[in-house]
Amino acid sequence: MNRQQLFEQIQQKQSFLCVGLDSDINKIPEHLLDNEDPIYAFNKAIVDATAPFCVAYKPNVAFYESMGVQGWLALEKTVAYIRQRYPQQFIIADAKRGDIGNTSEMYARTFFDRMKVDALTVAPYMGEDSVKPFLLHQERWVILLALTSNKGSEDFQLTIDREGESLFAKVPDHFLLVPGVGAQGGSLEEVCRYGMNSQCGLLVNSSRNIIYADSGEDFASAAAGEARKLQLEMQLMLGKHVG
Amino acid sequence: MNRQQLFEQIQQKQSFLCVGLDSDINKIPEHLLDNEDPIYAFNKAIVDATAPFCVAYKPNVAFYESMGVQGWLALEKTVAYIRQRYPQQFIIADAKRGDIGNTSEMYARTFFDRMKVDALTVAPYMGEDSVKPFLLHQERWVILLALTSNKGSEDFQLTIDREGESLFAKVPDHFLLVPGVGAQGGSLEEVCRYGMNSQCGLLVNSSRNIIYADSGEDFASAAAGEARKLQLEMQLMLGKHVG
Repeated sequence: MNRQQLFEQIQQKQSFLCVGLDSDINKIPEHLLDNEDPIYAFNKAIVDATAPFCVAYKPNVAFYESMGVQGWLALEKTVAYIRQRYPQQFIIADAKRGDIGNTSEMYARTFFDRMKVDALTVAPYMGEDSVKPFLLHQERWVILLALTSNKGSEDFQLTIDREGESLFAKVPDHFLLVPGVGAQGGSLEEVCRYGMNSQCGLLVNSSRNIIYADSGEDFASAAAGEARKLQLEMQLMLGKHVG
Repeated sequence: MNRQQLFEQIQQKQSFLCVGLDSDINKIPEHLLDNEDPIYAFNKAIVDATAPFCVAYKPNVAFYESMGVQGWLALEKTVAYIRQRYPQQFIIADAKRGDIGNTSEMYARTFFDRMKVDALTVAPYMGEDSVKPFLLHQERWVILLALTSNKGSEDFQLTIDREGESLFAKVPDHFLLVPGVGAQGGSLEEVCRYGMNSQCGLLVNSSRNIIYADSGEDFASAAAGEARKLQLEMQLMLGKHVG
């Protein structure tokens, strides 16, 4: 998916919501544990319920690989399901990979060629050459970790200007993935004031607030309700800043 | 495995060699492709051939996950095989993970609890809090990416002193994993001169030079030959610097 196609989806749905699939076997509703693949059953229900209100899904790869082979299977099946049923959804593998040369090529093979996600998150600790190998893949996106909000971020990220306002001004054509509206306490209003550009320029992620909105039988409709709430807020923001 | 146990292995085998299992389906000998799990068959043969000459194995996780579920299976089986047959070998999952909070906890679950490797490589882009969660696991090691040798390393690693000599002086009790003696052209002599301490303090990795020493039927004995060569050089170095 290219930038123009993503923007069209945002306009059509009046949403720039990304639903984070941080699906944890210890947190999903108990009644799902009878399924052959509980995580896949959970994801399928969450995706079906939230698809009208979001433009992207972001599985957090760590959660899947912690379950070994079974987890990878659930991840691959989830991505394939979204691809097939909701081909207009943008899929981000949140893997925070970072390496160089032939190892980066392996990551590209895994996520772009094999799993066919649209985007991969990359931690650029090793610098420019940890990013370049991914850029050879057409219509695939690399999402770089830039300024993270944790305390330890100062240990290595000192070279980046910490003022949101000036960061956005430096990259006016940005497309940013903003995590943590919701559980991590970010304000949508503020993010939009500084972060939006004429093509929206933002995807805003929400994970736990949506997928664990309810821990019982009604988890999917509760997730839909939370996603719908955010979509309505986003509609307002799009009207105000993008027009 | 703790530090003392690792040092005992080094003394006993007169080797501080780590064999890197960068096993690639496109590079292993053709006759292995008939096996049900060619990568596992390759790794098993390499491990059996090289175990007398090394103290550690380091599967590069990217190579396995690029094959999806089948790759994870090969990785888990390889680690289990080494654990069972060669319990004194130190196993490093070279995954270069880096995240915070509950995601780091997931990585620890994957590699320490589930796969039961001794050590995990971590890219500390997000700083101190991306490392701390791993330190709660007793007798498990975190290997931090510090000063990488690629060109782009200057993009983020500016805060670290670039002189090997003074880096070693700053952390006299270090245990360092030094990659790339061999294919990447490092000199064992030089690494030992600056990097050894009274408990050796080094593991030196070699991957492609050993595992792809021969592409035919004799790949395993060729790998043993290369590993043996390095072990002999290491024996000299241990005599000279550790005694």
